[in-house]
Amino acid sequence: MDQNKIPQATAKRLPLYYRFLNSLNHQGKKRVSSKELSDAVKVDSATIRRDFSYFGALGKKGYGYNVEYLLGFFRKTLDQDELTEVALIGVGNLGTAFLHYNFLKNNNTKIVMAFDADPEKPGTDIDGIPIYHIDDLEEKMGDVRVAILTVPSGEAQGITNRLADYGIEGILNFTPARITVPSGVRVHHIDLAIELQALVYFLKHYPLDG
Amino acid sequence: MDQNKIPQATAKRLPLYYRFLNSLNHQGKKRVSSKELSDAVKVDSATIRRDFSYFGALGKKGYGYNVEYLLGFFRKTLDQDELTEVALIGVGNLGTAFLHYNFLKNNNTKIVMAFDADPEKPGTDIDGIPIYHIDDLEEKMGDVRVAILTVPSGEAQGITNRLADYGIEGILNFTPARITVPSGVRVHHIDLAIELQALVYFLKHYPLDG
Repeated sequence: MDQNKIPQATAKRLPLYYRFLNSLNHQGKKRVSSKELSDAVKVDSATIRRDFSYFGALGKKGYGYNVEYLLGFFRKTLDQDELTEVALIGVGNLGTAFLHYNFLKNNNTKIVMAFDADPEKPGTDIDGIPIYHIDDLEEKMGDVRVAILTVPSGEAQGITNRLADYGIEGILNFTPARITVPSGVRVHHIDLAIELQALVYFLKHYPLDG
Repeated sequence: MDQNKIPQATAKRLPLYYRFLNSLNHQGKKRVSSKELSDAVKVDSATIRRDFSYFGALGKKGYGYNVEYLLGFFRKTLDQDELTEVALIGVGNLGTAFLHYNFLKNNNTKIVMAFDADPEKPGTDIDGIPIYHIDDLEEKMGDVRVAILTVPSGEAQGITNRLADYGIEGILNFTPARITVPSGVRVHHIDLAIELQALVYFLKHYPLDG
């Protein structure tokens, strides 16, 4: 089927479904209901059923979904077999947390290098990931086309410009700064303050039934 | 107007709009076009116009939106005047990054205390935020009803159960663990691996025009 026919909101939930189905499979489970999926991934069952219908996966009443079939589909869709290498820029507390995070355990995304402005850090590594000086960015990047940005806000746009000049394709921006990129570069922005504010806003205005 | 009539997707973008309008206001700007807003917050102009129409804010052609009017509306909507106190659980690298993050600069959400299992940390503070031992959670929480979870995955559910028993209302879960809570507790989950995987997935399947 044509990948581009899957709505973006659905596409965004694929990694979530994939991970949970993977863990079911490891436990030897053969089938799963939309209710179980819903409880596990915290997405309502109606949405799950609609999402899955885009993949041609229709659950059977009283049986649910076949775990292996779904996994096979998701694996292909998420390109689990193709490793994407990622550079991390900014080895402060947040960057260090990322470097300790075992991304490969669940998917084929791997941080292969990190950069920092601290002259003490180059030559060292964290969990085997080498840290280079930020001045050597262009020299060391090689074929890497995805970066995680965990630098101080004031540095974000300058580094982004260098990454864009180098030919970066995607940036996961964890700084509070809104960065401007040339068209063709995809940015996903995760702002910790806004995530917290959104939670508080929802608590106040969309109370859940207790 | 009835807050509950705003769609959740729109509600989720409010903190984003608010922050940008606030910075425009500080710069002395009186009006803003949906195009400028769109460039700044990375939401397409059609969506912005639709979102704003829910608030009864209709931009004038060739003028745009009145910054002060919008700010006044958003401020009321986001309850900027009411401070929400938050506890952070788990003072590792990610937790420390959160404690250094100046949340109050942009909104009225404040981390007022932190907890950790390391016996060396209680009695110390980070940027003035006291760190208590995790054993003292129930004793120290007081009126706090929102928590940020940055503990190791294996600890996430156990801590969540204690928070739920205490009467927590909202949890911002930054661990890779999917946690189960009683109905009535709102959980927002930010999984770093899934955010990275989603970016890579979008790069592969939804290329932008360069």
